[in-house]
Amino acid sequence: MTETAGETVRLSLDALRALAVQVLERHGCSAAMAGAVADNMTAAERDGAASHGVFRLKGHVDLLKGGVVNGRAEPVLSRPAPGAVRVDAGLGFAPLALALGLPALAEAAREQGVAALTLTRTVHFAALWPEVEALADQGLVALAFTSSPPNVVPAGGRVPVFGTNPMAFAWPRPDGPPLVWDQASAAMARGEIMLHARDGHTLPEGAGIDAEGRPTTDPKAVLDGGAQLAFGGYKGALVALMVDLLAGPLFGEVTSLECGAAATMGGPQPGGELILALDPVRLGGRSDGAEALLAAIAGQEGARLPGQRRFANRARSLAEGVDLPSVLHAEIEALAAG
Amino acid sequence: MTETAGETVRLSLDALRALAVQVLERHGCSAAMAGAVADNMTAAERDGAASHGVFRLKGHVDLLKGGVVNGRAEPVLSRPAPGAVRVDAGLGFAPLALALGLPALAEAAREQGVAALTLTRTVHFAALWPEVEALADQGLVALAFTSSPPNVVPAGGRVPVFGTNPMAFAWPRPDGPPLVWDQASAAMARGEIMLHARDGHTLPEGAGIDAEGRPTTDPKAVLDGGAQLAFGGYKGALVALMVDLLAGPLFGEVTSLECGAAATMGGPQPGGELILALDPVRLGGRSDGAEALLAAIAGQEGARLPGQRRFANRARSLAEGVDLPSVLHAEIEALAAG
Repeated sequence: MTETAGETVRLSLDALRALAVQVLERHGCSAAMAGAVADNMTAAERDGAASHGVFRLKGHVDLLKGGVVNGRAEPVLSRPAPGAVRVDAGLGFAPLALALGLPALAEAAREQGVAALTLTRTVHFAALWPEVEALADQGLVALAFTSSPPNVVPAGGRVPVFGTNPMAFAWPRPDGPPLVWDQASAAMARGEIMLHARDGHTLPEGAGIDAEGRPTTDPKAVLDGGAQLAFGGYKGALVALMVDLLAGPLFGEVTSLECGAAATMGGPQPGGELILALDPVRLGGRSDGAEALLAAIAGQEGARLPGQRRFANRARSLAEGVDLPSVLHAEIEALAAG
Repeated sequence: MTETAGETVRLSLDALRALAVQVLERHGCSAAMAGAVADNMTAAERDGAASHGVFRLKGHVDLLKGGVVNGRAEPVLSRPAPGAVRVDAGLGFAPLALALGLPALAEAAREQGVAALTLTRTVHFAALWPEVEALADQGLVALAFTSSPPNVVPAGGRVPVFGTNPMAFAWPRPDGPPLVWDQASAAMARGEIMLHARDGHTLPEGAGIDAEGRPTTDPKAVLDGGAQLAFGGYKGALVALMVDLLAGPLFGEVTSLECGAAATMGGPQPGGELILALDPVRLGGRSDGAEALLAAIAGQEGARLPGQRRFANRARSLAEGVDLPSVLHAEIEALAAG
């Protein structure tokens, strides 16, 4: 099932998922938790989003070993209001809580026109787009918001108060996969700044400030007492603020600031997630205008629709499997062994 | 009631509102329509947002004279789903449709936990924050989205497909006015680019491209065959895309692209608006974490919370009235006369 090609190892998606399950179960996850997390990671690898793929198994194991996450948590669903589904994740990883909550959210959105799913006491250490894509696959429009330990400053300030605070959006399309985007409110992912520091590269303008609050393109200065900036200046910082409020205090969960310092490698702490689903059928929606708009974007030289590269990667991975760096593969094999 | 001071005329807010009502009624608005629009303009003037104030009366009159807007429209409310309120504005200005829809939205959000208000066949030529602030004044969290004729290109492209597509957000606070922001997805307001062109000033980087698709700081090049850019590069362009889809096709209304060319001065065409309201009480929300986050922002040198200047202006205007440029005041008096 595996074949070695230079410094990479090719695995089918099934093999990759099985390996992730093995690692997660070995380190204390229930079969349900391991399966849900492995599904998310495999989806990320399948779509070429390696930074949310099995590279994160080590971080997951650290969170389990450190007792931050309960690998055997059993999420509990409640319905505090007709348009509100709530899942207490019991300090488990988000994908299992989502596996329970998303079907209930979809049903509520179809009943009510619009509905909200709130996850509490969860660790979201995964890609955010799978949950909105899953809803759009069922014909719903979806938005998702989650926060994380503070690394990003407000506009004009120098003390980090926001997480990288991603937001995701998905829109169903009649003849193909949905339109999906998922983007951090930070100008740049923290892991990417770490890679720039490691490789001695400078950052683009606008990614961060140094310990004195001055704009810098030196990744080490950002990581060493400096801070990250939001995308797009003060407007992006206000998006970060909105994400922070919607992903926590709106339903009783923590802000980024309350998350406290990250455990490891920008890893998360327990917190919340908000997902909104809207049913265009109940709201009187139409797809022709949307399709004309998307065609007018895709038809422009230099412009493209979000997610197109992911879907191309997906088609290839489903046919051919994915190539993992041999070093990473060896690390994962070691995690699976103990 | 008026006193002249140099080249400005001071008016009380009541006098300002009465003057706006007079102009709007003179040009075919019903008393209800004139009152609702005048309330929005007066709120903008009160908060120091002159670009959304009585300066826009001329544009409103043009829309009425041109038959784009029906000044005697009577909005019609329906409830297509338990969590969805719909108002057909009948080609009237948005504020009257909002006056009908917002109380029903607030009631639905309290019942359902989350609810949506969709406005159809309306012309939104007003500030967007008043509707979300009104909801947050009642303890609800609110988001609003509307689109407008296309002036903004997708990332990497050169053909405008998005309007300036503003989005507004409001969060209720226990001891004072809500946190409110309202920002265009465009890097810069179109009117501001026009002012730069008039005054011979260059634009900041990132505001626009010329007719060849090249980045430019020349406002005339942007207006003359060029186009505006979204804020924050490709991320802001994806926010613009989301706003476009949510403010129209989601509930059967037009995209920016379908709006077609603006009537005058970047003025709008009939289209839609989406407002979401969430009830933190039904969702299990808490304000202490949010307040700590907001204090951590406001307490930083150089940083500030959005809307603070508006609230300072408001306090002053309520006490002292507002100063209109004499030229503008004369123009409005002329509109009121015929």
